[in-house]
Amino acid sequence: MKTLTLNSKKQRLNIAIAVALSASTLISLPASANEKVRWKVQAVFGTHLPALGDPIKYVSEQIKEASNGNIQFKIYEPGKLVPPFGITEAVKNKQLNAGYTWLGYDQGKIPAAALFAAVPFGMEPWAYASWWYDGEGKKLAEKLYEKHNIHPVLCSVIGPETAGWFKKELKSLKDIEGLKIRFAGLGGKVMQKAGASVTVLPGGEIFPALEKGAIDASEFSMPAIDQMMGFDKIAKNNYFPGWHQTFTASHLVVNTDTWNSLTDGQRAMIDMACTAGTFRALTRGEALQGSVINGFEAKNVTARQLPDDVLDQLKSLTDEVMSEISAKDADFKEIYQSQQAFAEEYKVWKSRAYLPNKY
Amino acid sequence: MKTLTLNSKKQRLNIAIAVALSASTLISLPASANEKVRWKVQAVFGTHLPALGDPIKYVSEQIKEASNGNIQFKIYEPGKLVPPFGITEAVKNKQLNAGYTWLGYDQGKIPAAALFAAVPFGMEPWAYASWWYDGEGKKLAEKLYEKHNIHPVLCSVIGPETAGWFKKELKSLKDIEGLKIRFAGLGGKVMQKAGASVTVLPGGEIFPALEKGAIDASEFSMPAIDQMMGFDKIAKNNYFPGWHQTFTASHLVVNTDTWNSLTDGQRAMIDMACTAGTFRALTRGEALQGSVINGFEAKNVTARQLPDDVLDQLKSLTDEVMSEISAKDADFKEIYQSQQAFAEEYKVWKSRAYLPNKY
Repeated sequence: MKTLTLNSKKQRLNIAIAVALSASTLISLPASANEKVRWKVQAVFGTHLPALGDPIKYVSEQIKEASNGNIQFKIYEPGKLVPPFGITEAVKNKQLNAGYTWLGYDQGKIPAAALFAAVPFGMEPWAYASWWYDGEGKKLAEKLYEKHNIHPVLCSVIGPETAGWFKKELKSLKDIEGLKIRFAGLGGKVMQKAGASVTVLPGGEIFPALEKGAIDASEFSMPAIDQMMGFDKIAKNNYFPGWHQTFTASHLVVNTDTWNSLTDGQRAMIDMACTAGTFRALTRGEALQGSVINGFEAKNVTARQLPDDVLDQLKSLTDEVMSEISAKDADFKEIYQSQQAFAEEYKVWKSRAYLPNKY
Repeated sequence: MKTLTLNSKKQRLNIAIAVALSASTLISLPASANEKVRWKVQAVFGTHLPALGDPIKYVSEQIKEASNGNIQFKIYEPGKLVPPFGITEAVKNKQLNAGYTWLGYDQGKIPAAALFAAVPFGMEPWAYASWWYDGEGKKLAEKLYEKHNIHPVLCSVIGPETAGWFKKELKSLKDIEGLKIRFAGLGGKVMQKAGASVTVLPGGEIFPALEKGAIDASEFSMPAIDQMMGFDKIAKNNYFPGWHQTFTASHLVVNTDTWNSLTDGQRAMIDMACTAGTFRALTRGEALQGSVINGFEAKNVTARQLPDDVLDQLKSLTDEVMSEISAKDADFKEIYQSQQAFAEEYKVWKSRAYLPNKY
């Protein structure tokens, strides 16, 4: 048997062309689509937390499957690569290609960022998503974060948080004065105005702080998630409605250069996966809470509604906070006005089309 | 120069292996993933209709882009391949690989199908989707349609329809008696019980029927869509809330053998695209209605709410209809009970967590 040896350059080239042609016939992919995506993605929430933390897991699993392994995210639990509140900074500086975070944690450096994360007396989660995709939301977020070399992709939205877990019952706004409380985002600023002493701790540090008595009360997320954090063991009054975060949105933040280096197909895949992930987060969040609230009695937890006058007062304080930040920050003003205009028009529809709650 | 000739089988095999290895290094696809998907998809709604008809266009465009052309749907406008109400039958018989349809049109042959399409006094669209993905919905739909050799994929959900367009004002339930009206799905059965003479026409035939006076009133979809159909030119009273279809879901129906012939990656891609498409349909539908209602005055159209007592009576008639069908059809009973149990638990959450409408 003759051994095949390819000595001349031309022969090697012929084979190379044959290989290339065969490959292109087999798969019909543009060459650039073959470049694999391998990102380390730092998550801000534990991926065991349903609806809040697990969407990025769903997204990465679906992308890997649907792209036949072409795109793979390796997800890191909170704090593994960079601290929870340092994710966007690390992505901006290309220390990370991408992160999954809550933009409200950026409000110290970028006040307007909070509006994309959660808004007191804001829209319902589906209305926020509608503003994002079909109104001006996505465009405004991309514009805001372009300055920071980041491309944000909406990758989760869930319903209201509870208004918090309190050791003592709240009977009037006076009961908030002097209260040591963990309260994030714009809602935290409203609580500050109401006289509370507000801290913002990452999720993992809340339970120890409650246990030690370093804080008297805390909000974090929805009942099913808060219960996993153990808040119900210490603070027995769980308040509603979730006035301070009527929606909670999380984003995949991608370094702009990294995003631009993708093919159109890869960008479409990530957009589609995050859109699907956002919806699945919403539906999962809505599905899980009823049974948790129904189980409160057995745990000596009481679900309570904030008194009407407290809610009205919190609304007034919210209006003050939003005006003050709008006066100082043009981005905040533009984005908040866009949300309010959208919500105003939406109200015409939602108040007419949906059945009253009694049915 | 020596011409390269490969004479022995072994040599040809070596080259083949080299090609295969190079290809797999380049792209990491399992061989089966190279099989292209080319489906003709018959749509039941015109793809120009926002939120109701265009989701399948979005889905097919996104899939084509994200799969680098591996999966392509060719969408056919209503009636091009098979009549609007014959889509599932054609998919069942493999006359078509797939269709995009409203399962309520199957209720004559499969009574329980209507529950996956729209339910009078049913759930909000996000709650329906939550039941579908996170409750028993998807599983029950797959079980029901398995008998018909069809795999259904949720591919759009939108908010309530209007309660219809009427030439005359409705002051009591008596005004429905004898009314010739186009009303689809389970809501149509309720209207029949209320004494109306009900027909179900495909979308494209409604306007001519209204114009000729063959019908006095009609429902079809949301205001932005109905307006494109021209109903506002003839019937000047547009009623709310959308009691008869609190959500409207559409599905990609795929022949089971066709579905099973796909790779895991292809199935993941289609699932993901339809999940994203479902959400985008919902957000688009919610975004468009406010401005249409705000424009009614200029068109001499009046948006009206059904009187409370009429709504209560329609609720009672709905309960009767649902009981009657449940008594006759075990699938219907099982699926309706599943929806009601889910909605009951969801109510605990939605009534506590969301802000009152006044804010």
